[in-house]
Amino acid sequence: MKQDVVRVGLMGLGTVGTGVYKVLQRNAEDIALRAGIPVRIEKIAVRDPAKERTVDVPKDLLTTDADSLVDDPDLDIIVEVMGGMDHTLELLLRALRNGKSVVTANKDLIAEHGRILLETAEAHRCDLLFEASVAGGIPIVRPLKQCLAGNRISEIMGIINGTTNYILTKMTEDGLDFATALHQAQQLGYAEADPTSDVEGYDAARKIAILASLAFNSWVVFPQVDVTGITEVTDRDIRYAGELGYIIKLLAVAKQDEAEEAIEIAVRPTLVPRDHPLAAVGGAYNAIFVRGDAIGQAMFHGLGAGELPTASAVAGDVVEAVRNLRDGVRGRMLCPCYRRKTIKPIEDTRSRFYLRALVVDRPGVLGAVATVLGQYGVSIASMLQKSSQGDLAEIVVVTHSVRQGNLMDAVARLRDHEVVHTVHAPLHVEH
Amino acid sequence: MKQDVVRVGLMGLGTVGTGVYKVLQRNAEDIALRAGIPVRIEKIAVRDPAKERTVDVPKDLLTTDADSLVDDPDLDIIVEVMGGMDHTLELLLRALRNGKSVVTANKDLIAEHGRILLETAEAHRCDLLFEASVAGGIPIVRPLKQCLAGNRISEIMGIINGTTNYILTKMTEDGLDFATALHQAQQLGYAEADPTSDVEGYDAARKIAILASLAFNSWVVFPQVDVTGITEVTDRDIRYAGELGYIIKLLAVAKQDEAEEAIEIAVRPTLVPRDHPLAAVGGAYNAIFVRGDAIGQAMFHGLGAGELPTASAVAGDVVEAVRNLRDGVRGRMLCPCYRRKTIKPIEDTRSRFYLRALVVDRPGVLGAVATVLGQYGVSIASMLQKSSQGDLAEIVVVTHSVRQGNLMDAVARLRDHEVVHTVHAPLHVEH
Repeated sequence: MKQDVVRVGLMGLGTVGTGVYKVLQRNAEDIALRAGIPVRIEKIAVRDPAKERTVDVPKDLLTTDADSLVDDPDLDIIVEVMGGMDHTLELLLRALRNGKSVVTANKDLIAEHGRILLETAEAHRCDLLFEASVAGGIPIVRPLKQCLAGNRISEIMGIINGTTNYILTKMTEDGLDFATALHQAQQLGYAEADPTSDVEGYDAARKIAILASLAFNSWVVFPQVDVTGITEVTDRDIRYAGELGYIIKLLAVAKQDEAEEAIEIAVRPTLVPRDHPLAAVGGAYNAIFVRGDAIGQAMFHGLGAGELPTASAVAGDVVEAVRNLRDGVRGRMLCPCYRRKTIKPIEDTRSRFYLRALVVDRPGVLGAVATVLGQYGVSIASMLQKSSQGDLAEIVVVTHSVRQGNLMDAVARLRDHEVVHTVHAPLHVEH
Repeated sequence: MKQDVVRVGLMGLGTVGTGVYKVLQRNAEDIALRAGIPVRIEKIAVRDPAKERTVDVPKDLLTTDADSLVDDPDLDIIVEVMGGMDHTLELLLRALRNGKSVVTANKDLIAEHGRILLETAEAHRCDLLFEASVAGGIPIVRPLKQCLAGNRISEIMGIINGTTNYILTKMTEDGLDFATALHQAQQLGYAEADPTSDVEGYDAARKIAILASLAFNSWVVFPQVDVTGITEVTDRDIRYAGELGYIIKLLAVAKQDEAEEAIEIAVRPTLVPRDHPLAAVGGAYNAIFVRGDAIGQAMFHGLGAGELPTASAVAGDVVEAVRNLRDGVRGRMLCPCYRRKTIKPIEDTRSRFYLRALVVDRPGVLGAVATVLGQYGVSIASMLQKSSQGDLAEIVVVTHSVRQGNLMDAVARLRDHEVVHTVHAPLHVEH
């Protein structure tokens, strides 16, 4: 393809859109040299053209008609950073059918409708690139597709939600409780007024669905992820975990066993050993830890959100889309999901667990608890009595690896037991 | 290009070559699905075909005639993992002129002759891929070329030599001196019998030259790197650094300032703040920290050497070479060095420094030292008296940012001063 400029339609001029505009403007010369052709933003779809912006955008680029971008024959690439689900999906499908390459940061969309988008891109020989949909600026989508293409990936563990990592870091370092840490995060702009999607783990679940699809070459969608948020993690759990040599992180995990037929996928607060690379990832940072048969272990660390980091990922994708246009090889590395694997029922997965319970404070009670656990095949690695509260005693148990279904059955049985007052939600323990 | 198999000639069957053979064999099915065409190793050049190997290779693949591989019209891709300089260069240039794509793990070659290799690849529209030449399995070459292509990179700092990181980690954690830690590393196979290339920093210097070329889009070669090894780092320095909140690491650094006209490039033992992501990179692990105008900071962490990690990088490059063959777009993303930048004379670079000196133990001496430093424009951030040794006192100084030439002049002047007994080699301090 010989053309002297590549024309981009930008859908959305919020935080990320502003970043994309800034980066494509200020680094235009280098981007042109790297991509081989200059890149020009020709149209920008916004909700409110009159809105004050932190970047100086020529008014005549703005339109409120997003549909007009995907139907504009002069545009080569659509960059979608406006978010949204059904209508956005429809627009992007139309853009692909119209022969445009699409770059998107929309994790909700990819985690639910990635497959139809990629199949449509393939059918129309266009690119659909989504590096920005997972972990902001951190390169992970392309490394999984390319750099690690010689590996069988067995495991991905990620801290891929900055809000919850900020909250847990504050709880760990400053001894805050969840509500106070959340409030601080909201005041600093790290958490939304409605924090549900972050603190309940849904945001991380969408991202791990995308990563698992790439790593295991089989589509995984958001509703298949077993999700537990951090709202029930207490400062007490964090303190006890610390005494045991662990740090509590909200981990998004995707694993497959030797046979590579079934995928375990979950988001859950997890005890991570203090010397694990993920344990050192603090504040609003993200990191993705990958285990493969050749590479061993690798970790990718950086800013998982924000105007410019996310724009960095979008701009990298734009450069690739331009190179592919230039070389006439669009749609060459789209859907790596050539396998059909099942999702392992979460009760059939195995893990070590951390349990905290209040029990009656009298001789023989620890033995009774151990007996119940033993009846369900739960083997105890360590059991500690932490403190007494009136005539109750608090105990903490760390188990050996056990089937999650057995563990949950044992917990249910314990909750009914006469010597047990409460059993808090068990937490996973990684090693 | 329509062909039913891609034929690979493997040059070298040592540690990395064995890993490459294993990975391409055992992951053959997935690699074929990811690359689009099956990959087959057709010939392997070795020095001694009779040698016992840890992998079962059909004897009829082996040849001692490496030249025959690069001239074999049936081979599509040459994978070079045998090392060597002049003859290897000649062979790879001939392979490229014969229209073969080349994948190499040879950092010595790329750091000195990368430019002629890439220009030859471009002239003959072949690929020359070298992800494995830097930091083993850690994806960094491709992320710099692609994922971060929207950024202006201002800084790369890497722990990219596992041997020295192992030695420094042992010195830090177990209080060993350099000689003892080196001896342990040799016994465990982390250091060679002749450790010069590692402990003097040459290995890291080759890798940072390659990374700087990619990050700053201007060729940098090994002899341009200012290199200081770790042989003069003492357990005492490590202890004092620890008391000041730092860990000593052998950092390979490449930086450019706002104007992006000159590059600072060096390998040197450096005090890294304990809360910096690089400080947590221990043992034989490698990590590369990148700062860009959009991404902010990102870090890539993993195993920087070894049979399988390095093979992981080679296999990823083989997949890319096959995809490019398949799509008829070889040689599309070769030499990003479209700029001509200069190397900043090391004395003109600026840094904070750590100084340790033995001085006469009497009143007024600290003032005399401070006065000399001040005469050269060296401003003191902190000065501590550490201990007395007979009638000498040991002092430690951390400076504010200062031109390195001034600092070295001040040190030379101090070494002549009547109240000064010795001044140890200054160390850089990062923040």
